[in-house]
Amino acid sequence: MITSSANQRIKDARKLLTRKGRHAAGLMLVEGVRLLTDAWRSGAKPETVFYAPDALISPEGVTLLAELEAAGCVTLACTAALFATLSETTTPQGIAAVLPLPQLAWPTQPSLLLILDGVSDPGNAGTLLRSAEAAGCDGVIFAPGAVDPFNDKVVRAGMSAHFRLPLRICTTWPAVDALLPPGIACYLADAHAALDYATVVWRTPSVLVVSNEAHGASPDARTRSTAVTIPMHGAGESLNAAVAGSVILFEAARQRRTGTVVNR
Amino acid sequence: MITSSANQRIKDARKLLTRKGRHAAGLMLVEGVRLLTDAWRSGAKPETVFYAPDALISPEGVTLLAELEAAGCVTLACTAALFATLSETTTPQGIAAVLPLPQLAWPTQPSLLLILDGVSDPGNAGTLLRSAEAAGCDGVIFAPGAVDPFNDKVVRAGMSAHFRLPLRICTTWPAVDALLPPGIACYLADAHAALDYATVVWRTPSVLVVSNEAHGASPDARTRSTAVTIPMHGAGESLNAAVAGSVILFEAARQRRTGTVVNR
Repeated sequence: MITSSANQRIKDARKLLTRKGRHAAGLMLVEGVRLLTDAWRSGAKPETVFYAPDALISPEGVTLLAELEAAGCVTLACTAALFATLSETTTPQGIAAVLPLPQLAWPTQPSLLLILDGVSDPGNAGTLLRSAEAAGCDGVIFAPGAVDPFNDKVVRAGMSAHFRLPLRICTTWPAVDALLPPGIACYLADAHAALDYATVVWRTPSVLVVSNEAHGASPDARTRSTAVTIPMHGAGESLNAAVAGSVILFEAARQRRTGTVVNR
Repeated sequence: MITSSANQRIKDARKLLTRKGRHAAGLMLVEGVRLLTDAWRSGAKPETVFYAPDALISPEGVTLLAELEAAGCVTLACTAALFATLSETTTPQGIAAVLPLPQLAWPTQPSLLLILDGVSDPGNAGTLLRSAEAAGCDGVIFAPGAVDPFNDKVVRAGMSAHFRLPLRICTTWPAVDALLPPGIACYLADAHAALDYATVVWRTPSVLVVSNEAHGASPDARTRSTAVTIPMHGAGESLNAAVAGSVILFEAARQRRTGTVVNR
């Protein structure tokens, strides 16, 4: 039982609570029975598993720990107080694991991609990942200014899509370009655009760009894209960014599924 | 300048931070320059405006205060420390107002309604209000178990839709029924249903029910509705509740706008 906060494994794990620490180590920390179960079922291989015996009381949690032990993961018991220093939730479930940052192969012929252009709210970014997977996106690009996809809140809102959907972080727009096949149609969700998103043909390979909640599209995103809008009733100025992105992605999915070409 | 937390006006306003206090008084507290400006532009009439001169520094905030004063609202300066006791945000903008709970007329011939069946996350509920207004809903019903629509976080995520969209809180399902015209088609968003939401004809008067994030549909909601699903790729189990509801509401809006009848 680890009891000291000076323990090197604990100190190393705690570094993964920051973006810098995660990317320096190439590792992330995933906490909670549900998230870790989903990550494990999705093929993620924990390097080290920390658990607090007093807090890990659900049957699902006990089963998960046993499975991870049986699969050869290093499992380390620690006190509940020490475990809390690894946790970003208010009621920790007593299990967290160190995992390699997922690096799934980028699609060579993507059909639908999502770019997060400076999306900074972790809940929105995670919700968009969850929607992107469900709508059939082949990959998601975190363009300059976007939140770190491996931030705890993004992982939590993403419901483990991180482990099934290829993600790339790009610190420059030329790096974004390098991930896009030549000639792919690129659209930008923009509350002030004139073009109705529902009149766009989404059945051919397409990219959707969702921009920062407060500041809108970056100039780099704008020059690469055709702006589309979701026509709105009422006096509201815009939709939530995760909603706007999801509505458009599921219109693409709908067109692809039902075979409906645009008609007015 | 009010300096004492024993001031009766401050004490009365602080009671509005709880659901019970709001409904007992028939009043709510709206805080922040943007939200209060939107509420004011939407026709809400502040009874009392509290402001902290040291914190109310933005030009928009100063203009708003002047407008409210000119319109005859009671404006009361208070210390920043006292103002903070009325605020649920971490960096208060120094202006908050007491408003009557909005009670807009319920539509007699609604075309599109939304029911929140036990939706408990305030961010989701607010986001759904914002989407409902934009998708052209005529009203939103908070069915048993749903969060209070006038909770601060719901108001914040709702972007003032509260002041433009008729809302009703129902503590029983018969009370919900009384708000629905006879024969209106009622659909329930359900990740496990068989019927594709995009094959439903949404051009006739319709109700969408969105249910609790964790527990799913209540038996009362289920007996009143036809379950529809948003077909999903990947291994995720469901969508975020606000996303699922928004995707379906905007499909209804799309069908109504583009005249597209369902085709496969």
